[in-house]
Amino acid sequence: MPSAISLLGVPRGEDDRPQYLALRDQIASAIDLGKLSPGARLPSERQLQTDTGTARGTIREALFQLEAEGLIYRRDRSGWYVSPPPVTYDPTRWAGFMTYVVEQQRVPATETLSIESVAAPSAVADIFRRAPGTPMHCVTRRRSIDGRAVLIERIMVDPVLAPGLAEHDLNGSLTQILSTHYGLQAVRNRVDMRPCALTTSVAEMLGVKPGTPGLLVVRTSFAENGAVVEYDHEYWRHDAIRVHVDLQVRP
Amino acid sequence: MPSAISLLGVPRGEDDRPQYLALRDQIASAIDLGKLSPGARLPSERQLQTDTGTARGTIREALFQLEAEGLIYRRDRSGWYVSPPPVTYDPTRWAGFMTYVVEQQRVPATETLSIESVAAPSAVADIFRRAPGTPMHCVTRRRSIDGRAVLIERIMVDPVLAPGLAEHDLNGSLTQILSTHYGLQAVRNRVDMRPCALTTSVAEMLGVKPGTPGLLVVRTSFAENGAVVEYDHEYWRHDAIRVHVDLQVRP
Repeated sequence: MPSAISLLGVPRGEDDRPQYLALRDQIASAIDLGKLSPGARLPSERQLQTDTGTARGTIREALFQLEAEGLIYRRDRSGWYVSPPPVTYDPTRWAGFMTYVVEQQRVPATETLSIESVAAPSAVADIFRRAPGTPMHCVTRRRSIDGRAVLIERIMVDPVLAPGLAEHDLNGSLTQILSTHYGLQAVRNRVDMRPCALTTSVAEMLGVKPGTPGLLVVRTSFAENGAVVEYDHEYWRHDAIRVHVDLQVRP
Repeated sequence: MPSAISLLGVPRGEDDRPQYLALRDQIASAIDLGKLSPGARLPSERQLQTDTGTARGTIREALFQLEAEGLIYRRDRSGWYVSPPPVTYDPTRWAGFMTYVVEQQRVPATETLSIESVAAPSAVADIFRRAPGTPMHCVTRRRSIDGRAVLIERIMVDPVLAPGLAEHDLNGSLTQILSTHYGLQAVRNRVDMRPCALTTSVAEMLGVKPGTPGLLVVRTSFAENGAVVEYDHEYWRHDAIRVHVDLQVRP
């Protein structure tokens, strides 16, 4: 049975482009035109070989390229799938995950995986202006969009500012809990973003292969008096997020 | 002769962490402590094997992990090197590359690789609100920091708005040329960022392996009347850039 890809014909490496890029373009345009919709399973590598008459190596190169671009992703042992559209994250807005995901007509969910007390490594201690080894709340959560896990976050909170934090339901907005129950209100947000490779523990929690490309978003929020309210590391599947900033010249 | 890494001893996979992560931490902390400085060549994989008594596969896993994190990079056939510190890019500021690189005590350079007239593909034509196939200026430039190529950019400019653009020296600020010679002043900037894999042509211009992780920054700048001044794709080495936003609550 011909697959959605084979309908497009055998890829041709015209204008000196390597053949894997021609195949990449073909699959990308099948996705673009909706012949392969988000969540759809791609034909198997073997099927693609038959359909396109292309060598296995070329096919894998094209698939890895599409994965690196975030257009497709792998599920353990069950093949390649078309990535759902990413959500747009605007670091200049003050909205939290639950808010901006809903605004984009998607369904967010948060699941608390653990809350522990950890001894602050020196880099973390510096941020909180505490001595290295000072105990910190460390909340690990998994967040999903439309039922697909997209990020793991590790949030550090100073237990001196938020005693008994573990007794709250942390599956909602942590920012809200910190503000309502502890009077901790952030007035400044520092955001750093960098590409990363998802390490074993995070990759397992997201159900992806260790080493999968990710985006690390580090957020530090400060209260009026300069105290650190939250220090958060978000490890995103790189195909789930787009960063967007719209900037006007100051009038 | 023992290398900087061997001084740290054999990596131990304590607390259930895979051994490659222990080695990763060891190299990362050698970089952090300045035992390996930016630009320094790492010991060869064979030397690392001897020094640490670790299997070749484990060593490569650790090196790929460090590469994905941007801490080290490969030079063709000559091994692994410590990455220079990244520059910080703040998309909420109105400063160009030449400005923000100098502000960070680094030396920027721009080299024009080509300026051609290309027929606008439909996605580009839509941005400029022109018919597909309309000729556009396409400027390809390579930008460096301290002599290391960090990004390739492809800038599209509408030749109706900037006739004869090719006759200018484009190794400086294009924004300046467009403003001085053509009265084109951007008042709005739209920035989108996403991780990507560097494809063959860009990778070759940067001297890296095709498929190396990159960061794609797409900037569209608009004039007062809504016309697109520049439509720019910047393909960055992912280890050369950090995105940083600092945000205050509006008073």
